[in-house]
Amino acid sequence: MGNLFVVSAPSGAGKTSLCKEIVDFFPRLRHSVSYTTRPPRAGEVEGRDYHFVARDAFDRMAAAGRFAEWAEVHGNGYGTAIATLEEARSGGYDLLLEIDCQGAAQIKQNYRHGVFIFILPPSIDELRRRLEGRGTDSAEIIARRIENARGEILQAAWYDFLVVNDDFSRARDEFRAIILAENCRSARVLPTLPVEFGLAESL
Amino acid sequence: MGNLFVVSAPSGAGKTSLCKEIVDFFPRLRHSVSYTTRPPRAGEVEGRDYHFVARDAFDRMAAAGRFAEWAEVHGNGYGTAIATLEEARSGGYDLLLEIDCQGAAQIKQNYRHGVFIFILPPSIDELRRRLEGRGTDSAEIIARRIENARGEILQAAWYDFLVVNDDFSRARDEFRAIILAENCRSARVLPTLPVEFGLAESL
Repeated sequence: MGNLFVVSAPSGAGKTSLCKEIVDFFPRLRHSVSYTTRPPRAGEVEGRDYHFVARDAFDRMAAAGRFAEWAEVHGNGYGTAIATLEEARSGGYDLLLEIDCQGAAQIKQNYRHGVFIFILPPSIDELRRRLEGRGTDSAEIIARRIENARGEILQAAWYDFLVVNDDFSRARDEFRAIILAENCRSARVLPTLPVEFGLAESL
Repeated sequence: MGNLFVVSAPSGAGKTSLCKEIVDFFPRLRHSVSYTTRPPRAGEVEGRDYHFVARDAFDRMAAAGRFAEWAEVHGNGYGTAIATLEEARSGGYDLLLEIDCQGAAQIKQNYRHGVFIFILPPSIDELRRRLEGRGTDSAEIIARRIENARGEILQAAWYDFLVVNDDFSRARDEFRAIILAENCRSARVLPTLPVEFGLAESL
């Protein structure tokens, strides 16, 4: 029985970099690969970054209830297949889902044992500096991202854990600690103990 | 609102060394100082190792309901004062209680928000080796400690977290992760966030 970690953050909070570090650090933790209707970008690999599917295939999956969560974002469909979660469970590895608050809320309804983590910027000003520092977005797009971020941050309250990414290494240590601590929960450790401890009937 | 960490372990599991490392590592975490009727040993300091009290003072505290947990061990009284827990709460620091399963179960009844951690040896054989390696106890006492350990280990199932102390540095990392992760819980982080995030009403 693997753990399910669900991570959300506003754009610019550093979620992608933090999640990459975390997945590299824990051998038993894997990134969940979502389905999407949007075309692959340069460098993206089918089955690693996304499962790229045609719109009609995506819609059939959604209609058949095969998604644990799905959403439309800017006209593209994104979804996490229930099969992806079940493969992790039966395979005994942990899964990391990087999804927005809307998707996380859907997961929360059906997977209450999931561990929900929200990554926050230290302030709106710092978030703006980071988005401007990328040098890729117009002032208008940055303003929209900031507005979206304000809305998303309001959702942070219902998550289990909050990681403030002011200093990357500190945020990484906190994120790691959350994963490691969950792996020390009784339900996870009990099955690994020697039979002589007599705890088998507690499982 | 500080966290309350309750740590139990059979004799020889390495609890004392691990707890010392942990308290030294987290500036906001302090050892709870218990009351006891047993006389101080060489090197023990009043108010640091224990509050040493006379039997009648201890009994009056117990009768007045001033202990969060207390027990008689080998004819001596040991107890944790409710005032000690309340000072930590109002002082905003975390508290680490090193107590046996009996005391931990009493704490659990009245402080359900406490975080309960059990430290285990990797095996009974290894526990025996460690107790023999101390060179301080007779074979008879070691045999009794092993029997006690078997009974205590059966209590591990109801604790929140289990740390197997096979390798000290690994056990220390897991113990640290549990403390750090608890400090990342939403209820702990929300009050520290900037007002501009608009999460004040979630407190």
